[in-house]
Amino acid sequence: MSEDWAGSLDLHVDLQSGGGRRAGLERAVREAIRDGRLRPGDRVPSTRALARDLGLARGTVAEAYAQLGAEGYLQARPGAPTRVAGGVALGDGMARGGEAWSGGAQSAFAAPPEPRLSLRPGVPDVGAFPRSAWVAALRRSLQSAPDAALGPGDPRGRPELRAALAAYLGRARGVLADPERIVICAGFTEGLALLCRVLRGTGALAMEDPCFAAHRDIAHAAGLRVAPLAVDAHGAIPEIPQDVAAVNLTPSHQFPLGGTLAPERRSAFVAWAREHGTLVIEDDYDGEFRYDRQPAGALQGLDPERVVYAGTASKTLAPALRLGWLVLPDRLLEPVLAAKLNSTPALEQLALAELLAGGGYDRHVRRMRQRYRRRRDSLLARLGGRRTLGIAAGLHVVVEVDSEAEVLARAATNDLALESLQRYWHRDARFQGLVIGYAAPPEHAFAAALDTLADVLGIT
Amino acid sequence: MSEDWAGSLDLHVDLQSGGGRRAGLERAVREAIRDGRLRPGDRVPSTRALARDLGLARGTVAEAYAQLGAEGYLQARPGAPTRVAGGVALGDGMARGGEAWSGGAQSAFAAPPEPRLSLRPGVPDVGAFPRSAWVAALRRSLQSAPDAALGPGDPRGRPELRAALAAYLGRARGVLADPERIVICAGFTEGLALLCRVLRGTGALAMEDPCFAAHRDIAHAAGLRVAPLAVDAHGAIPEIPQDVAAVNLTPSHQFPLGGTLAPERRSAFVAWAREHGTLVIEDDYDGEFRYDRQPAGALQGLDPERVVYAGTASKTLAPALRLGWLVLPDRLLEPVLAAKLNSTPALEQLALAELLAGGGYDRHVRRMRQRYRRRRDSLLARLGGRRTLGIAAGLHVVVEVDSEAEVLARAATNDLALESLQRYWHRDARFQGLVIGYAAPPEHAFAAALDTLADVLGIT
Repeated sequence: MSEDWAGSLDLHVDLQSGGGRRAGLERAVREAIRDGRLRPGDRVPSTRALARDLGLARGTVAEAYAQLGAEGYLQARPGAPTRVAGGVALGDGMARGGEAWSGGAQSAFAAPPEPRLSLRPGVPDVGAFPRSAWVAALRRSLQSAPDAALGPGDPRGRPELRAALAAYLGRARGVLADPERIVICAGFTEGLALLCRVLRGTGALAMEDPCFAAHRDIAHAAGLRVAPLAVDAHGAIPEIPQDVAAVNLTPSHQFPLGGTLAPERRSAFVAWAREHGTLVIEDDYDGEFRYDRQPAGALQGLDPERVVYAGTASKTLAPALRLGWLVLPDRLLEPVLAAKLNSTPALEQLALAELLAGGGYDRHVRRMRQRYRRRRDSLLARLGGRRTLGIAAGLHVVVEVDSEAEVLARAATNDLALESLQRYWHRDARFQGLVIGYAAPPEHAFAAALDTLADVLGIT
Repeated sequence: MSEDWAGSLDLHVDLQSGGGRRAGLERAVREAIRDGRLRPGDRVPSTRALARDLGLARGTVAEAYAQLGAEGYLQARPGAPTRVAGGVALGDGMARGGEAWSGGAQSAFAAPPEPRLSLRPGVPDVGAFPRSAWVAALRRSLQSAPDAALGPGDPRGRPELRAALAAYLGRARGVLADPERIVICAGFTEGLALLCRVLRGTGALAMEDPCFAAHRDIAHAAGLRVAPLAVDAHGAIPEIPQDVAAVNLTPSHQFPLGGTLAPERRSAFVAWAREHGTLVIEDDYDGEFRYDRQPAGALQGLDPERVVYAGTASKTLAPALRLGWLVLPDRLLEPVLAAKLNSTPALEQLALAELLAGGGYDRHVRRMRQRYRRRRDSLLARLGGRRTLGIAAGLHVVVEVDSEAEVLARAATNDLALESLQRYWHRDARFQGLVIGYAAPPEHAFAAALDTLADVLGIT
């Protein structure tokens, strides 16, 4: 009987594989139960019979049964035969065999094939990420980091990075950055989510219209109401509804329309926050990339108690790092940390601190600034007389088009990924346009991307 | 006048420092405004006068004024003198000078001095973190990673890591892990927070009583009601209230009481989930560390459509990595990803994938298993006849004491950090005890920590 049992069940006991004979037997029985060859209530052979059939010591089989019992697969009762436990059964749609278990998830979540070329906004040229310099920075910083850097750590983030950022942000962006008031977070995304959680219940969040749609989603997910803030060529217009508790701005380079916030508006937003006891969130997402002149310093410098400065390494280095930072007014430090249930991974913080302190970050930003400036010039030249919006800054340009839908359709047939303004507007679209991210392609594909764009736009 | 202005204001224009003369002048004026030497409405000297005073070209001063105007510090009107803008003023408590700006935050958030020795639970011996192997794994994986690994990427996490984990978890923990259903998250903390957000509105979350208090806090923060689940020496008791939508369990090693979930209870929880269409969350926080026998395989293997498997590298490698993983039932994949607004940093995922695939992870776990087993033996020996709770597994032991408060007070005076059971209970404490984490100290301090513990407990 027992021989039949093992034979008919195709009980593969691979005694060569890892973990030895006992583990091999356990694996084989588990698999037989999982794929339905053994069913709940089925008797399994006695340890003696199975040991003889498989040429194993009886003790080995007994141990395997005990293990499978402890795991809930088998049920042994004194004086009764061991059976497959009642609790074990697999749901519908379960494929046969361990390896084959994939089912519907693969098809549902397999990314659609990416177009060959992309001019989508929001990402830098990750092909230029300084891989060797990053690994070297991590190695150097790990050599001197204390053991505590590997433990749970300060919820604000590593002190090495907060100190390096305070120096950098003061020097490069005019931020009044005390390391004690910096909180390192998983990109601007987490930073905004934390602020939204803190703001919940105090009023609406005013966001530029148009703005990056995912940021609006974050505010909604936190339960905040979003009030639209009209935008023109000089940035957001400081006409703020009554019930607004905070304003989210992109002062150095409005995303996506590309204006820089006019000086009197900078003052007006700060004055509003001071007068009403409210808050300005300054999303300085590409403050490092200005091509025609020195970038305007951060708004935060005007009043660090009313302006939260938010920066990120997603545009200067790579989105995959998920590294961002908030420079907070004193009164917001405790609430933000209370909302932050999870600290930010520490090793990348050490590497970035080392890169900042050793000058490698500045070198990389300078190199990328030259590259993006060159790309912007090429793009504008290739667009000929087409009207574009935005100052000479950042990683994107807005081009007006007659029909977003038609352009996107033509781009798709030409294997080019483009993004339209559509989702950026809060209310009705004021015009149709594309948000062209000229940083997205790797260097070798940039010319081809421009040629395809020109084709798609009917520029000869 | 202008000479006086610069002189009386102590306008330090450091022409040697970074950014050149113009940047130096801008910095000096900004600082003068910030620390109140220049006030809103104050006239600033004409560009001609200031250029003469400072020995600068007039164009340089004009550019600096234009920059300061763009930043909102100065206000220039055609035909009128340039003045300090009305919007600029610093809040109360602002220290003088850029560098000195720290104020209250430092004192409020400076961590209290850490005790010299620690036997707190929840952390591994981070002194044993394989720093060189980690850097080498990152270097190797970055050499072959596609550029896309540095972009925004798959919200589930890097495919390299999901594939390596699926193989590892199947082999080491008996998990039915399809890479397509794995979601990499920032430690178990984020994994639990995501599940709680998905569960919101469907019913209560039952959690073991006692359990890790921070996990209860996460459920509460997500707006979930928490129902206590009684625990004895054989793990959680499967008596589940009516309105419970999910049960959070630590089957391989109950935290903190240290039992392993009895086989019939494993089946009972799975049967409950199947019968009621509910969910079991399996927190396999230290499934790799069993010292007396092969660890029980994961509960998830009994029914992958009803059990979420949750694992973490926080105990095997380091909490600072913030790397954890969920193996999800098909139907939960989309809702969990919808709740996950932020993807997990990618570079550490690449390094961990390389460490898993190359065998370095297994080697490290084996080495640490030996170390912790030795430490557990030493601890039990040092405790003499004191009654301890828990199987030979994991990184902690519970010791009953007469008075937690007295023991903690004695520990504090002996510079030893200890944790009591107090916050772990949902309801009244059933007894007083310590949760001793024998993994916390670095190797060189372990003996001293044990000696101090023995002193504190009055063991001679």
